Amino acid sequence: MSSLPNLEGVDTPALLVDAEVLSANIARMAGLFTDRSQRLRPHAKTHKCAEIARMQMAAGAIGICCAKLSEAEALVSAGITDILITTPIIGNAKVARLVRLARHAAIKAVADSETCIRAYAMASEAHEIHLNVLIEVDVGQNRCGVRPGSSAFDLLELLSTFPSLRFCGLQGYQGAAQGIMAQDERFAANESALKSLLFTADLVRRRGYQIDVLTGGGSGSVEIDLQLGGLTELQPGSYVFMDTTYDRIQWGDPMSAPLFVPSLSVLTTVISRNDPKRAIVDVGWKALSSDAGLPRVKNRPDLRFDFAGDEHGVLQNVDGDAVKLEVGEQVELIPSHCDTTVALHDWLYVVRKGALEDRWLISARGCFQ
Amino acid sequence: MSSLPNLEGVDTPALLVDAEVLSANIARMAGLFTDRSQRLRPHAKTHKCAEIARMQMAAGAIGICCAKLSEAEALVSAGITDILITTPIIGNAKVARLVRLARHAAIKAVADSETCIRAYAMASEAHEIHLNVLIEVDVGQNRCGVRPGSSAFDLLELLSTFPSLRFCGLQGYQGAAQGIMAQDERFAANESALKSLLFTADLVRRRGYQIDVLTGGGSGSVEIDLQLGGLTELQPGSYVFMDTTYDRIQWGDPMSAPLFVPSLSVLTTVISRNDPKRAIVDVGWKALSSDAGLPRVKNRPDLRFDFAGDEHGVLQNVDGDAVKLEVGEQVELIPSHCDTTVALHDWLYVVRKGALEDRWLISARGCFQ
Repeated sequence: MSSLPNLEGVDTPALLVDAEVLSANIARMAGLFTDRSQRLRPHAKTHKCAEIARMQMAAGAIGICCAKLSEAEALVSAGITDILITTPIIGNAKVARLVRLARHAAIKAVADSETCIRAYAMASEAHEIHLNVLIEVDVGQNRCGVRPGSSAFDLLELLSTFPSLRFCGLQGYQGAAQGIMAQDERFAANESALKSLLFTADLVRRRGYQIDVLTGGGSGSVEIDLQLGGLTELQPGSYVFMDTTYDRIQWGDPMSAPLFVPSLSVLTTVISRNDPKRAIVDVGWKALSSDAGLPRVKNRPDLRFDFAGDEHGVLQNVDGDAVKLEVGEQVELIPSHCDTTVALHDWLYVVRKGALEDRWLISARGCFQ
Repeated sequence: MSSLPNLEGVDTPALLVDAEVLSANIARMAGLFTDRSQRLRPHAKTHKCAEIARMQMAAGAIGICCAKLSEAEALVSAGITDILITTPIIGNAKVARLVRLARHAAIKAVADSETCIRAYAMASEAHEIHLNVLIEVDVGQNRCGVRPGSSAFDLLELLSTFPSLRFCGLQGYQGAAQGIMAQDERFAANESALKSLLFTADLVRRRGYQIDVLTGGGSGSVEIDLQLGGLTELQPGSYVFMDTTYDRIQWGDPMSAPLFVPSLSVLTTVISRNDPKRAIVDVGWKALSSDAGLPRVKNRPDLRFDFAGDEHGVLQNVDGDAVKLEVGEQVELIPSHCDTTVALHDWLYVVRKGALEDRWLISARGCFQ
């Protein structure tokens, strides 16, 4: 792209990704699936970016996950054609869009209520398509999903009365088990979630239903889920970017290097220096998410960041010393939560060996419907 | 707009504004300035919406404030032509854009460093324009601004060596004093901030400089600032929408109705009901900001909301009882922080007497540069 400025000319605050680290994270995740029966279907809610979805598919992913219908619509428009939408889709207008989308791409939807199943059925009949549906099971998150065990039957029996719906399998995701720092505790939590799902799957199979897909898992549980087996598809998302929350967890072998490395940062410029102990930068809540806490200052362990409003942040020395930064200097911040930070930006600036290489559209930015 | 759905057909999560409450808030704020020497220049960082800026101007505002250059660019493109940009603009490429913008609109910029003043001067000389500049004074927020008192002189003397720069006055904003709940404590904090600014202004005038503009204040201090006098322009923002944070503060007369009333909400749909005590809705951190805490459920004091991830929330009964809501039902949430919630959305859906009337583009959504 000849119109790109150099990195120093990028208007801040700006979202950067280190191209080499990103590629390494994608390759390392894909590598975990070599010679395994499980398949990788990364969650695109993290990046919302068609370029990265294509990199994941090129590395062997069988498709992607999206959190919402509009996110899937944006990525189908950008050329991604195999998508599992991981949240039940409610509302007649929305479900009509779902079945229209399913004409153009291989779409799977999840359901956990009679209302949802009936709406899927009505719309797919009206549009004369077959819709692929997974039943979501609540494996401990207390969010969406039917209770593990026989409560999936009622929905499944309702589902099977509609010829336009095709039952594919079960989804069970336990988000709270992803970020547990200690590897043994994380193992136990994910094993417990998996047991709930497999127990339910077993009951469903015994009633004569075929299960093609058992999907769940995330970046924090991928090693565990691969080791335990049972899931047919895994849906990790954050591994492409990582963040300070995920970066704290212990991987399987405490002596080895972390599996995935932070590739994402927010570039910010010092705009005010009127106190020796404080440098004011041009990023606040509107360009950096705070739901998981504070970001880490990249390559500057001497500095800590605090939010100072919608559009400002403050850098201070961790020891209370003067801050060595002039007006106009820049630092990078590693977000505490990659998904919610990416969702604030329109563009992802791609950096390779410190030089700006490209910029990618966050294709599904704002697509939370 | 004939293509608008009815309110029930609006895709959720969606940002709603009650048109009548919005108009009343705008009129009430404008009314406070009747027969006053102070002028109203509302901060558009709250709404980022050209339609609302036009309503504010029509009600008597002399112009608007923007937080960032790109926000001002977006609103100039949308037809707003008198803007104070309240954050120092740093970086040669950015300053070049600033002076280009100043060709098309009445722009005032703030500065608090020699680097900033020199960049403004170089660019405005190169583009052969006169740039209006205010010196920012730190009146207690510990963010941008020179120290109160004589430290403004150095910058002012530097500024006056450049014929392309025109000194307009001083800005002093104390954000932390806006949200203090108790009216007397808020009064004291704002009086203290104002004193710092007036003290500095006095010193500056005694050195022979003319001050046309003394700007500061916010929605929480507007009554206080009008009563105290001193400021020539006030820059409240949140009053158009209000939020649960601002809605907690006491106004001047504790017996009277609040000056401003919440007009903003996020419409969300129940998507899952597998636990009698929990209703899962389709809004999480990506469509509702959490930096100021939890939203309030509108007209449903029996319910409380918690975030349940990027794209999910959970509604529970405040007494622990079962939640009476079916899949597909909708509730409105009043954000805890209007500015950061608005910044997540592309559209603002305008509701009048419960019916959808229009939708307005959030013209400067994503404009945090």
